Amino acid sequence: MTKVAVLGVGLIGGSIGLAARQRLGAEVVGHSRSASTVERAVELGALDRGAASLAEACENAELVFCAGPVAALPEQARAALAAAGSDTVVSDVGSTKGELVGALGEDERFIGGHPLAGAETAGVENAREGLFEGARWYLTPAERSSGLLYDRLQRFVTGLGARPQAIDAASHDRLMATVSHLPHVLANALAAEAAETLTRGSERLPEVGPSFRDATRVAGANPAIWADIYTSNREAVADSVEAAARRLAEAAELIRAGDHGAIAAWQASAGEDRRRLIEAQSEAGPLRELRIVVANQPGTIAHLALALGDAGVNIEDMALHPAPDMTSGAVSLWVGGDEQAERAQRLVRELGHTVTVHGDGE
Amino acid sequence: MTKVAVLGVGLIGGSIGLAARQRLGAEVVGHSRSASTVERAVELGALDRGAASLAEACENAELVFCAGPVAALPEQARAALAAAGSDTVVSDVGSTKGELVGALGEDERFIGGHPLAGAETAGVENAREGLFEGARWYLTPAERSSGLLYDRLQRFVTGLGARPQAIDAASHDRLMATVSHLPHVLANALAAEAAETLTRGSERLPEVGPSFRDATRVAGANPAIWADIYTSNREAVADSVEAAARRLAEAAELIRAGDHGAIAAWQASAGEDRRRLIEAQSEAGPLRELRIVVANQPGTIAHLALALGDAGVNIEDMALHPAPDMTSGAVSLWVGGDEQAERAQRLVRELGHTVTVHGDGE
Repeated sequence: MTKVAVLGVGLIGGSIGLAARQRLGAEVVGHSRSASTVERAVELGALDRGAASLAEACENAELVFCAGPVAALPEQARAALAAAGSDTVVSDVGSTKGELVGALGEDERFIGGHPLAGAETAGVENAREGLFEGARWYLTPAERSSGLLYDRLQRFVTGLGARPQAIDAASHDRLMATVSHLPHVLANALAAEAAETLTRGSERLPEVGPSFRDATRVAGANPAIWADIYTSNREAVADSVEAAARRLAEAAELIRAGDHGAIAAWQASAGEDRRRLIEAQSEAGPLRELRIVVANQPGTIAHLALALGDAGVNIEDMALHPAPDMTSGAVSLWVGGDEQAERAQRLVRELGHTVTVHGDGE
Repeated sequence: MTKVAVLGVGLIGGSIGLAARQRLGAEVVGHSRSASTVERAVELGALDRGAASLAEACENAELVFCAGPVAALPEQARAALAAAGSDTVVSDVGSTKGELVGALGEDERFIGGHPLAGAETAGVENAREGLFEGARWYLTPAERSSGLLYDRLQRFVTGLGARPQAIDAASHDRLMATVSHLPHVLANALAAEAAETLTRGSERLPEVGPSFRDATRVAGANPAIWADIYTSNREAVADSVEAAARRLAEAAELIRAGDHGAIAAWQASAGEDRRRLIEAQSEAGPLRELRIVVANQPGTIAHLALALGDAGVNIEDMALHPAPDMTSGAVSLWVGGDEQAERAQRLVRELGHTVTVHGDGE
C-alpha cells in the first residue's frame, strides 16, 4: 500500500488525502500545526491518521506533499527532506516555484509541483476527492531530480485525476505571473485609481458599471496569501507588471493620437487574443457569447440555466449585467462551438427572451 | 400631448420611445437612415410613426434625442438644432460629452445627456420600456443652456424612470474614462500581454484561470463602437491610462523590493477601495461574498439561485470558478448586508453545499 504524507491539511492537502485514499487506496498520514485541523481531516476521511510531528508523518512515506502557506514552504520542505528516507519523493503544491526549487533543487528527492485547482476556496471543509479531476498539475523537476522519483510522482498525481505537465521552474513562474498574478495587480491598480479619481472633489461616489466590477473582482484578494505569492515570485511579477505598464503607455499614446482606424484595429486584435487564449481550453470549439435580455429576478436566470443544462448545453463562462434597479438586465453566457450556440439560442427564444449571438469578430 | 423626436432608433432610442409612449403618453416620431429599422420600431410600439427626414421628425418636437453612433452625434445634433424650433430642447445619449458640448454648447437649446443603461446589448429588438428604471442619467448643461429647457429635459427623463444628475461635460468624461473606458483598455492590455508572452517559444497555449477570464472579459468589445468612444474622449482616456501605467510601475517597484508587510498593506487597501466603490451603489449594506462549492452541472447553480430568489435574497454580482473538467467548481455570490448574507448562508447549507462568507478584510 502506497504511503503518503501530507504536511498542512487545508483544501489542497485535504483533497490530496481524500483522492489518494479513495482512488488509489493509499495510506495517508497528515500533520498540521493545528491539532484540531488534523482531527477534522481524519473525521472527513482525508487522512488515515494524524502524526504528532512532521518527522513522524514522513516516516516510511513514499511521497510527501508540502501543502503549507507559500512563505512556509522552503522550511517545511527542508524539514521533510531531513526527515524522509532516501527513497522518498518530496513535493509541494505552492503557486510559485523558482525560489523553492532554487533552494532545494540540489536534493534529487525534491520535485516541485503546482496543481491549478481550488484557488477560490480554502480549508479542509471544502476538500473533495474530485478537486484535481482534469486539472493541470505542473511539476518542476530540476537537473538533479531523480527520474525514478519523478515517475512515481507523476503517476501518483495522474491517479488523483490530474494532468501532470513538466515545466522548468522559471517558465512556470513567468507563466503564472502573466495569467494569474498580473490580473490581480491590474485589478488592484484599477480599484485604487478609481477610488482616488472619484473621491476627489466629490462627496458622493458615482455608479460603477459591469466592466469595472469584472475588472476589479479580485482586487485585494486575501492580503496575507497574496503578499506571499507576489513576494516569492517578485522578479517575474515585477517584469510582467512593467511590461503591462509599457503596453498601457503605448495605448495611451495611440488613443491620444486619435487615429480611429488604428484604434479599432488595436481593439479588434485584443479581442482575437482573448478568444485564442480561452478557446485553447475548450474542447467544444470556438467560444460563442449569447447575450440575453431577462427580467433579473434570480429565478429567471436560474430557469434559463436549468433549461440549457437539461438540453446538454455546457456554460463555459457567465456574466450578469444587471440594470440599476436589479429588476431587469442582460446576461452573457459563453458556450463552446456553433452547434451548442445554435441549440442554446433556439431554447432561449422558446423561453421568450431576446438573444443575440456574438463571437466572430465582434 | 408632449411631442418627442428620436433620431436613431436602436436600443436606447427605441427604449426612449417605448417608455415615453407608455409612461408619459407622449407622441414619438422617429427617424433612422434605415427605413426597415423605423418600420420595426413602429411595429414594436417604440414609435407612433417614422419620419422621412430628420427635419420632418424634429418638426414641432418639444424634445429631440440624438441617439446615433457616438461619432455621428455632432453632425446629427447640429442638423437637429437647425431643424428644430426655438422652444425645443435637443439632447443626445452618447457615452462621451466634452466634444459634443464643446461644439454645440453655444446653442442654448442643446443639453448633452448620457443614460447609464443598456451598454451590454444593442438594437431596437432589445429595446424595453423599463430600460431606464432606476438608472443614472447624466445631463451636461453648458453655461448658456436654457434653464427652462433643462427643467423640461430633466422632468422628462425622470418620467422615463431614470435618475437625472447634472454634471459638467469634462467631469463626466473623466469619470467615464476611469470607471468604463480604462477597464476596457486594461482588459486589452492584459489579453495582448498574455497572448504575446504565452505563445513565445511554445506551441501549446497553457490554461488560463478565472482571474484572467474576469479581467479580460471586455477585451476587444465591438471595435467600431469602442474606437468611437476612445476617440471622442481621447484626452481623458489617455490621461487615465497613463495614470494607471504609473500606478503599475510603482506596483512593480513595490513587488520587486519584496517588503512583505508593505505588499500586504497595498493589497488590503485595494480591496478596501473596491468595496467602497461597489457598496456605494447597494442599498442593502456592505457587500458580502459567499463562496460555495458545487457540482458544476448547470442545474445546481440554477437550483441555488432559485432557492435564494424564493427566499428574497438579491444577488448583486456573481462569478463562476469552474474546475477544469467543468463537473465541479465554486461559485461566488455577492449579496448586500449581513442579514441577507446570513439568510443565504443558512439556505445554501440546507441544500447541502459548503459555503464560506467573506467581506470583512478578506
